[in-house]
Amino acid sequence: MNGHPARPPRAGIVITGTEVLTGRVRDRNGPWLSDRLLEAGVDLAHVAIVGDRPADMHAALAFMAREGLDVVLTSGGLGPTADDLTAEVIGSFQGREMMIDAALEGRIAEILRPLAERYPNFDREAIALGNRKQATIPEGATVLEPVGTAPGLVVAPAEGSRGPTIVVLPGPPRELQPMWRQALATEAWRAAITGARVYRRRMLRLFGIPESEIAETLRHAEREGVDLAHLEITTCLRGGEIEIVTRYEPGAQDAYEAFAQIVATRHADTLYSVDGTTVDDQVAALLRGEVLASAESRGQGGARRTIAVAESCTGGLLLARLTNPPGASAYVLGGVVAYSNDVKVAQVGVERETIERHGAVSAEVAQALAGGARARLGADVGVGLTGIAGPSGGGDEKPVGLVWTCVVGPEGASLTRSARLPGARPDVRERAVTVAMHLIRRLLAGGSPEKKFRPAH
Amino acid sequence: MNGHPARPPRAGIVITGTEVLTGRVRDRNGPWLSDRLLEAGVDLAHVAIVGDRPADMHAALAFMAREGLDVVLTSGGLGPTADDLTAEVIGSFQGREMMIDAALEGRIAEILRPLAERYPNFDREAIALGNRKQATIPEGATVLEPVGTAPGLVVAPAEGSRGPTIVVLPGPPRELQPMWRQALATEAWRAAITGARVYRRRMLRLFGIPESEIAETLRHAEREGVDLAHLEITTCLRGGEIEIVTRYEPGAQDAYEAFAQIVATRHADTLYSVDGTTVDDQVAALLRGEVLASAESRGQGGARRTIAVAESCTGGLLLARLTNPPGASAYVLGGVVAYSNDVKVAQVGVERETIERHGAVSAEVAQALAGGARARLGADVGVGLTGIAGPSGGGDEKPVGLVWTCVVGPEGASLTRSARLPGARPDVRERAVTVAMHLIRRLLAGGSPEKKFRPAH
Repeated sequence: MNGHPARPPRAGIVITGTEVLTGRVRDRNGPWLSDRLLEAGVDLAHVAIVGDRPADMHAALAFMAREGLDVVLTSGGLGPTADDLTAEVIGSFQGREMMIDAALEGRIAEILRPLAERYPNFDREAIALGNRKQATIPEGATVLEPVGTAPGLVVAPAEGSRGPTIVVLPGPPRELQPMWRQALATEAWRAAITGARVYRRRMLRLFGIPESEIAETLRHAEREGVDLAHLEITTCLRGGEIEIVTRYEPGAQDAYEAFAQIVATRHADTLYSVDGTTVDDQVAALLRGEVLASAESRGQGGARRTIAVAESCTGGLLLARLTNPPGASAYVLGGVVAYSNDVKVAQVGVERETIERHGAVSAEVAQALAGGARARLGADVGVGLTGIAGPSGGGDEKPVGLVWTCVVGPEGASLTRSARLPGARPDVRERAVTVAMHLIRRLLAGGSPEKKFRPAH
Repeated sequence: MNGHPARPPRAGIVITGTEVLTGRVRDRNGPWLSDRLLEAGVDLAHVAIVGDRPADMHAALAFMAREGLDVVLTSGGLGPTADDLTAEVIGSFQGREMMIDAALEGRIAEILRPLAERYPNFDREAIALGNRKQATIPEGATVLEPVGTAPGLVVAPAEGSRGPTIVVLPGPPRELQPMWRQALATEAWRAAITGARVYRRRMLRLFGIPESEIAETLRHAEREGVDLAHLEITTCLRGGEIEIVTRYEPGAQDAYEAFAQIVATRHADTLYSVDGTTVDDQVAALLRGEVLASAESRGQGGARRTIAVAESCTGGLLLARLTNPPGASAYVLGGVVAYSNDVKVAQVGVERETIERHGAVSAEVAQALAGGARARLGADVGVGLTGIAGPSGGGDEKPVGLVWTCVVGPEGASLTRSARLPGARPDVRERAVTVAMHLIRRLLAGGSPEKKFRPAH
């Protein structure tokens, strides 16, 4: 129960598992749950990572209870083996006896049946034991139906006790994520977050401006009388892109729209997403011939287009990113990773003289790569990318981080840009791909690209 | 001070920053520090992630103190602006007054000078204020010299108090990591971990066996009389590879060697690394013509070899992984991402009839891709990879996850394998690349591959 309905409920997350604690496995649940809590109007105060020792898990829960948190989410430790201890620790922490839920035991057995049939040499007794263990839950807990074989739980403190309600979720993200929806619908969850306000959450994405300009825009919005007090705005710089996330109560919708309008006006050249879509989403949609929601290209949706790439310093990362979405084979024909100059000449048709005269990292070679990829693979759109990823190979005139990108489309449409990217080799490679994705988007979305891109040097 | 010299010192890590707490930025320091603590013989008990609220940071520190931890490491919150509060919170927590370290202030000013010269329109007063703020430290703290502009700190509890010694480190990994070495050398750190034993840490890497066989090998080692009681063995399954990490005191070296020998004997076909090297390290070394440390290929080092790839369902990920190490341009010529069948024919020279007769996902097409990549790009080694990454495109005979890989080398050497990989599209792509890396390694390292690979179906 939330004793202070005037403030948002506060939450903690406890990630369990020695493999996560020791960094051998990366936790993907904490960040995901943190976004979901934001949407649910719950403030996240603490994340704790603990190993598989019950005493440490208990200590982390006690810490969060002492902090007065209203809800705690846990992930992991719900497997069938004896070292998966979360349910038992939570039961004891909440002062509830453990009991076997016979109906649940039967449902888990149903889930396990095909597995046992497929692998007849599995130990049947071990399976039955694990089945029973997973059906042993704290008395009075709300069961969240298994997505894999592990049920989740929502466990309030025992009658007469105080403390957080605990939502117990499995470790694998593909099980945890659907189960979260179930948890939200339970009476126990709703009771725990009484007083939570409903928030809206919107994201603006920009590319190609420094973060400091957003700070200036916020000051400008304030001067213009936009009521920023009811908008919770956070900006984040990520791989050269800026994300502006705003959380607000429905009553502040007008304030948000006024703010978003100021961003759109001041940053018309660099704001590319107002609906949460990424540049990857937009490039895929444009290649499929879909209409984008963003203002710039409204109504621009058109024909499906195929794409081919010739990339050098990024070594396949651009093609890997383009082929990442399911269904990419409908529009990605493929490409050439032209790491050596010989491959640029033989496989893409770049003239050796162009390389000799301008150097492999040049506008001319980027253009020849784009044109060659388009022509040789018979694609509608061709992309060329060449640069110096480092750590060696840079010079005064062409330093590490210099990248040239070119995109050519039908009817002679073409954009060529250079960028000087900061960071070490992996950063340069990653960011060069992001630069290319934005250039592809810009060519496909139309608009007036020349005035919209600032030359990098 | 560690009051229980008989047990290893225990540590906690506090990661600060609202961006990390809310999952907008991924923490890379926790896993790194956790490995370093393991090496230093310190047990990691808790990781806490907190936002930029001083009260939450204080609560996390109090929790770790109550848990009786000997040392706490913090990362982040050391910047020049007023919302970077870590030093102040730590000072107050340890009962130490804040003071300006004038000498440190001068050293930071020296670091900032070139910055101020390069950007003359930066606000000089703001820089001076930030400089002073970063030189304001808890009285009696040991200063760790700045790597960027932020100094780190080692702060013991005030005279007469009990509690953990706190090592205060900056957030950016490139600053935190070198500073950690400084921290290890301080008197304050050594005093805090009195009684820490020195541990050795070794890693064995295997590919192509289920984790359960390692459990069986552990039982076998026990039956053979290996003293496992003094070895702390953890196994971890990661992307189809198994890592066996063993930590032990120097006195248990014989026990470790006996254990490692049993693994080497029982898993001769799948153990590929005994020295911590990854398959990526080994493939790069073999292509550079270096000698591997692993037993299998001892003395096999030889000529430098160039490599070319034609990949389909992995869409560039294999080439991206091969070109990841600095200096890869010395041996990676490039390759073709042959996503469409037309590209397989036109760019790699696969016969259309081969595709029609056997299907694009087949041993024959994988071989034609490998041979084509090798011939067309003039490489010593050619790799072909074709498969079904899903979610669609699979059938009964050729399900999602089926991948064929082929590696061809000089003098007709050739290996072709299929695998059926579990998971969703990104998992299949990632794992297919790992399978290919191991096949490349096997061809280059020699040995007797036929008996060493189990057919996948």
